[in-house]
Parts: sequence; structure tokens; C-alpha cells
Amino acid sequence: MKKLVNDPADVVDAALAGMAAAHPELRVDVKQRIVVRADAPVSGKVGLVSGGGSGHEPLHGGFVGLGMLDAACPGEIFTSPVPDQIQAATAAVDAGAGVLHIVKNYTGDVMNFDMAAELAAAESGTEVRAVVVNDDVAVQDSLYTAGRRGVGATVILEKMAGAAAEQGRPLAEVARVAEAVNANSRSMGMALTSCTVPAVGHPTFELGEHEMEIGVGIHGEPGRQRVPLAPARDVAEMLLEPILADLPFAPGDRVLCFVNGMGGTPLIELYLMFDEVARILAGHRIGIERSLVGPYITSLEMAGCSVTLTRLDEELTALWDAPVRTPALRWGI
Amino acid sequence: MKKLVNDPADVVDAALAGMAAAHPELRVDVKQRIVVRADAPVSGKVGLVSGGGSGHEPLHGGFVGLGMLDAACPGEIFTSPVPDQIQAATAAVDAGAGVLHIVKNYTGDVMNFDMAAELAAAESGTEVRAVVVNDDVAVQDSLYTAGRRGVGATVILEKMAGAAAEQGRPLAEVARVAEAVNANSRSMGMALTSCTVPAVGHPTFELGEHEMEIGVGIHGEPGRQRVPLAPARDVAEMLLEPILADLPFAPGDRVLCFVNGMGGTPLIELYLMFDEVARILAGHRIGIERSLVGPYITSLEMAGCSVTLTRLDEELTALWDAPVRTPALRWGI
Repeated sequence: MKKLVNDPADVVDAALAGMAAAHPELRVDVKQRIVVRADAPVSGKVGLVSGGGSGHEPLHGGFVGLGMLDAACPGEIFTSPVPDQIQAATAAVDAGAGVLHIVKNYTGDVMNFDMAAELAAAESGTEVRAVVVNDDVAVQDSLYTAGRRGVGATVILEKMAGAAAEQGRPLAEVARVAEAVNANSRSMGMALTSCTVPAVGHPTFELGEHEMEIGVGIHGEPGRQRVPLAPARDVAEMLLEPILADLPFAPGDRVLCFVNGMGGTPLIELYLMFDEVARILAGHRIGIERSLVGPYITSLEMAGCSVTLTRLDEELTALWDAPVRTPALRWGI
Repeated sequence: MKKLVNDPADVVDAALAGMAAAHPELRVDVKQRIVVRADAPVSGKVGLVSGGGSGHEPLHGGFVGLGMLDAACPGEIFTSPVPDQIQAATAAVDAGAGVLHIVKNYTGDVMNFDMAAELAAAESGTEVRAVVVNDDVAVQDSLYTAGRRGVGATVILEKMAGAAAEQGRPLAEVARVAEAVNANSRSMGMALTSCTVPAVGHPTFELGEHEMEIGVGIHGEPGRQRVPLAPARDVAEMLLEPILADLPFAPGDRVLCFVNGMGGTPLIELYLMFDEVARILAGHRIGIERSLVGPYITSLEMAGCSVTLTRLDEELTALWDAPVRTPALRWGI
């Protein structure tokens, strides 16, 4: 295992200490593993909390800040945060207007966020609503999921719901926006290589030198099929066909097109993939209204990519364009 | 070779086509391989042109836009752009106030930028000045360089000189800022793995399972020493000791601390490294005034990192903070 680490058991805490040192605009509680925007709770504003296993950086801690999340709670690598931790994050951002939990659809995450919401309601009377992200069209159930997995749409949802909350909208409205983003988003990913969880020390799965995994999950869960290596244009077809068929996307739709890197794939390949995706979308007369290219929801050093399409209307486009100031996404301020 | 590509010979053009599709705010000439900000030439403004081999993305094309570069000209992977191409980029951004060439110190780049400047002067009378970036303390001469190599400081220099140009400063002033950034910056990198140039098809160099290369160049050039794998805190010491001794940095200095990913290293490891670097700087009573963490000057999918320190004064800090709007760095607007 070749990694920049000290003790493999200590990676999450050490990285959080690094975030604290690099981003004085955040409050990072390394012990409790909570990343909070420094001005939280923001008076009158709905609080947004997300979290999940570590190893997907910049998701979620890199998306804490004005116009996006109020707090993130990272678990161990590829492991859900615990209820007490989520409850503490919820309390830290509760300004009296309620809190929205943004939960990727994995069994442990859903259960622990649910318990945290009950604890928050019981102990401080906090009104908590949850949106469960389940945009991955690859598989119906999977290793860690009943129903679809939550993947790339999480990034888009956190940005758009964050903008709605920043505008002072009430909890029901922010939750409606979040549900709308999830309902209008579909994703699928692929891997050229596995990744290695530091505390495990060997690759999560084995892929032959001439194989790739289509429909892979962000923890290396198996996907739809293992196929021979193919040119980027064929990979783009394999990802786009199920995405487009599922919603379904239709001619005339305008989308946000997000080509995401899994962590070990260089940007030059992601732009090359974007070109292929754009060509397919043009062939379906689907317009790219906004785009995002880069590693935003990763699986440690896995090589591969995912594509997320979000169907836009005027409201969602404006929410995407709204100012945001986080370590990983920033514009307008 | 596991990569998201079609024809290995066509990677640069295909990625540029992807940039064009993803970033309508840029003018991308795929055929001539020039990325230009859409509103260039900007009346009265000094034009900033950089370029170099591809494979270091987002450098340089991802830094084209308001407050940073006016144009970038990418060569083949790890190969200098050609003089005609650089001259065309220079002409595209020449608004009559002169053009600054930002050149990383590699023999081919220096020669080709120099020829382009002569062509531009002869053909259109454009006043061109060049700044050569040579911040890498690892080696004095190297495979592709007489003198030190230009690495991470290039990112910082393009941002700060770009801000100075955006403020309308004259060419001599913008060049002075660029020289000041170079003079106050030192870098060193390391690799855990090699990378593979697509058209070559095999790794640039071989590293044993338990080895790493300290002082590696951004094209996989050999560094100072090949040593056994070590904990992150020791890696940080190996990078920081020569950086700090070289300028030298002194107690009381305020710095911009840039922990850069080489392309295949996940963000969680870069933040972990930032923590180690911050601890060393604190021990030397050097203050971190600004920070940058992420893959900004890469070597395809190489795993590893580099550290760049730039000593700040009020002027450079203000130029760093100034608004910027490019695909890879964006704030304030």
C-alpha cells in the first residue's frame, strides 16, 4: 500500500486536522469529527447537515460554507458517521428554523441519520427533515443499500438546497428543492482500478489488467457488469444509455452535466470524457446548460469516473448559479 | 495501460474539445491548441500567456480567465508548445499594452517561448517580456533543464501576476510582480508511483513497491534520492527541510502554503500532508497566511505531492485575494 499516511488507523483525524489548518473559515472539531461553518448557527436560516463515510473527499467537509452545507460529519473511511456525531452537528447549526439532513442512500447512513433526528427532536426539540439521495441507476439493491445508491447528485443537491437555505427559505421549501434535485438527477459510474482502504491495506476488489467495472459504487461495490477495457467513447455510451433511459431525459431538456473523477483519474481524461458525453447529449438534442468537471465525490485513489445529469428548470439553474464559498466549490463571493 | 482515452495519440485534442464544451466562457481553438479568455484582447490590459506540455492539468488551460491568464497553449503531453502556437496565443491577447510570457524553466519551453517572442516583435511589433519560473529546490540541473525546474510556484505566479494585470498595471509592473513571486517561492515534490504517457503506453519510470522518489519532477524526472516508503510526517520533513533552508525562510515569515496533488493522490491524503506541513511551519514560527490544497499542477495519474511556499507581503497577499474566474480557481466574482 503506497499512501501518504502515518498510522493507517488515524487517517480521518489527521486529515481533519489538516482541514482545520488550511481553512480557518471553518470550525473543525477533530475529536467529534464535525466540520461547521464558522458563523453557524446562522440566525433565521435552515441548517443543512450532511455526512457519510470518509474517503469521498471533497464530499462532504469540502462543501461546508456559505451557500452550501452548514455542517458535515465524516465517519471512518467508507463507514457511516454515528448518531451522536450527527446529533452534535445538528445542534451546532440549529438556529431555530429547522435542520435538513442530506443522506446518501446506504443502510447504515439512513439508520444513523434517522436516530440522530430522533435524538435531536427529543433533546432540543429541533425540527429535522431528511432527504435521501438515490440517483445511481446502476443497480436496484446493492451490497450496502436497499434501493438505489446515492452518488453524484449529492454534490448538486447540496449546492442547490444550500442556496435555497441561504436565501432564507423555510424548511419545507428547502426540502422541496432537495427532493426536486434528487428527482431530476441520474448518475452512473465506472472503475478502471480498485482503491485501498488504509486500515485494510489491500485493494477492495480485484480487476484484471484488461477489465473495467461498469456501474461501480463509490465504495468499490460491484456494478452492472465487468467488461473488457474499451475506448472512452464506448465508456461514455455505457454510462449515458442507462442514465438517459431512466428518468427519462427527453429532447429539449436542459441539463447540468457533471463528469466526476473517482480520485485517481487525471483531469485531462475527465475533459476527454466530457467531450464524449457532450457529443452523445447533442445527438439526443439535450442541451448542456451548466457543467462541472473534476473529482468532487471520490473513492480514495480509484481510477474511473461517473456522470451525473440533472435536468434544470429556471429555479434550479438560479440556485446553481447562486454564490457559494466552500473549500471545494466557490463562486460569486 | 488503463486510461479513459480513445486514440492515445489524440488525447490532447480530445481534452481540449471537452474544455470547449464545458466552458463556453473560454475560446478554445482545438486545431491551433490555444485556450483564450472569451473577451481577449482586453483593452488597455497587459496580456498574460503561459503554456507548456500537457498532462499537468488544470495547469495551464484551467487558469485562463479574468484575473489570471489571458491565454494558454498546451503542447503534446510533457512536450513544449511550438513557437507558432505561442505566437498565435500572444497575438490573440495583445491589446497594445504588451504581453507577459510565463515560462516554466525547461529547455524546450524557454527556447520556444523565446522564438515566439521574437516572431511577435517582428511581425506585429508586440512588446513581450518573459518570466522564467524556477522554484524547484530538488535539483540544480536535470533531464530537461539547465538550472532549476519550474513547478508549483507557476500556479501562484499566474494568479498574482494575473491580478496585477487585471488592475491595469503596465507591463514592467506586472513583470516585477511575477519576478517577486518567483523570487519568494520554493517547492519540492515526491512520487509514490510513476505515470504513463498515453502514446508511450508504459510507466515513465519504475519504482519498487516499497520505494518513493523524493524531489521528483513533474514529468517523472529523477529527483534527489530514492528512499524506502516512510510515514507522511517524514515525507513532509524531507520536502520542507530543503525548501526552508533555500530561500531561506525565517521565523516571523508569513507564507502561502500550497500542498499540491500530483494527480493520483486523493484529497484526504493531501489534507493529512497539510497537517504535517503546518506542524513543521509552526515549529519554525512561520505563519500560514493563505493556503491552497488540491491537484493544481499534476503529472497525469502520478501518486505523490509537492509543497510550495511563497513568502507573502501585503502586496502579494492582496493580489492572491483579488477576484479570479477560471475553471480551476475562482473566487470573488
